[in-house]
Amino acid sequence: MYHEITPEGFGIAIEKEKDLFSEQSPYQKVDVFSSRAFGNVLTLDGLMMVTQRDECFYHEMIVHIPMLTHKNPENILVIGGGDGGTVRELLKHPEVKHIDMVEIDKAVIDASKKFFPEVSCGLDNPKVSVRIEDAVEFIKDKENIYDIVLIDSTDPIGPGEGLFNEGFYNNVKKALKKGAIVTPQTEGPFAQSENMKKTYRLLKKVFKNVAPYCSPMPTYPGGYWSWGFCSDSVEIPFDYKQIDEKRAQNIEKTCKIYNRKLHCAVFCVPNFVKELADGK
Amino acid sequence: MYHEITPEGFGIAIEKEKDLFSEQSPYQKVDVFSSRAFGNVLTLDGLMMVTQRDECFYHEMIVHIPMLTHKNPENILVIGGGDGGTVRELLKHPEVKHIDMVEIDKAVIDASKKFFPEVSCGLDNPKVSVRIEDAVEFIKDKENIYDIVLIDSTDPIGPGEGLFNEGFYNNVKKALKKGAIVTPQTEGPFAQSENMKKTYRLLKKVFKNVAPYCSPMPTYPGGYWSWGFCSDSVEIPFDYKQIDEKRAQNIEKTCKIYNRKLHCAVFCVPNFVKELADGK
Repeated sequence: MYHEITPEGFGIAIEKEKDLFSEQSPYQKVDVFSSRAFGNVLTLDGLMMVTQRDECFYHEMIVHIPMLTHKNPENILVIGGGDGGTVRELLKHPEVKHIDMVEIDKAVIDASKKFFPEVSCGLDNPKVSVRIEDAVEFIKDKENIYDIVLIDSTDPIGPGEGLFNEGFYNNVKKALKKGAIVTPQTEGPFAQSENMKKTYRLLKKVFKNVAPYCSPMPTYPGGYWSWGFCSDSVEIPFDYKQIDEKRAQNIEKTCKIYNRKLHCAVFCVPNFVKELADGK
Repeated sequence: MYHEITPEGFGIAIEKEKDLFSEQSPYQKVDVFSSRAFGNVLTLDGLMMVTQRDECFYHEMIVHIPMLTHKNPENILVIGGGDGGTVRELLKHPEVKHIDMVEIDKAVIDASKKFFPEVSCGLDNPKVSVRIEDAVEFIKDKENIYDIVLIDSTDPIGPGEGLFNEGFYNNVKKALKKGAIVTPQTEGPFAQSENMKKTYRLLKKVFKNVAPYCSPMPTYPGGYWSWGFCSDSVEIPFDYKQIDEKRAQNIEKTCKIYNRKLHCAVFCVPNFVKELADGK
């Protein structure tokens, strides 16, 4: 049985079928096992990252909310996201001209290509540059390049830690074009409320318009996840009629979660999530 | 460690502090244990029912969505719900004149009064009649009585089984006043998709307007739960401006989840949930 148990003492349990892969990379331990419930499962330092059955729940949300809120998202930066699921969803948008994906750990990409071909399938697309680098360094000298930046990171421990600080975000901000949107994953509101609170304090220091949006994510702690909508110029999309119907329909028909009405509904969050994002 | 594992092979794990209670009632095994993560936890036949930390996630949703959609909900029937959380939330509404709660198993009520005093606190209120009976029998001779019927049942196995069939729902329908709303819990869309599909097939045979609404429920399978909005005359509330602002505000300020905007957002469900409710 695989377990991911929070410091508070609860979490998910998954019956393993078979261990498929295990490697200690320079950054973290990368493991893959198979399961009846979720197909193949990738963990990093024992923490849940990707399963074949529910990865789309996460990837649709981190990608389509900012992408379909932006009027013409051409140049995209993905930080982390080595499994490739975020890139796969981005490539559904015909507006995309180029994607930089900056992943620190090549072992994650290699494991995904071998055990999650339907997730990593976009990584060899000619529109995509995969860079095996530390994003904290990569972003330092970038200016006025990206329409959308997605921060598809691990938790703020281990290799993901440097992606949760103000210096990093100020560099991200410099790298943005006018009208850009930045969307980081912002942790589980129920299981990681302190991480989430700290993250929103940080995001609100850097960006003018900041709002959490939430959606189910069965294999992540608490079963419910949050992402941040951050922009200096684009308003939070509270009315689905602002979302282009044709573009949304094209995406929607490929999705298990995303639809145009849900696009705005995900911003109507429970009271306890609002309070966390307000730093209470 | 407590586990609830689905037939597919995944589920929740909770570190136990201490076993507090165990009794084999005529209907099911009633257990209570304490935990750091969730406080006291009640299980029936080993399946998760109530925890002190997240019970309000469920009870706010089953109650306030139908109650605040109805213009003047005076007479209420709760089927199941022996822990008392549904009754506690109902009593927040000043419109309520009387609540019948029909629970088959007195052992659940007794355990809740002892180990969940903040959940069961409404059961002795003079507006509430607690009836220890089989709801399938109770409902047979009722006509034109209730404005709201909430079916706060277990899964469709064991004592809850008879609450998932057409004969029962036809009797519920006879018991309704004009303009009534019926809201059953309709299982976890991710972890119990077949149960959910069957339930919506049944509900759509009986009622004219039927829609699922969803919200996070950390300790239930998949971490995400569904309830059904069913009515022959009341439309599904897709616009929050239809919800009385004053009534909603009074409820909202007591809630961890419920707010007026979320009232309608919860009906904008993921594509896979729409498909389940459409019987696909």
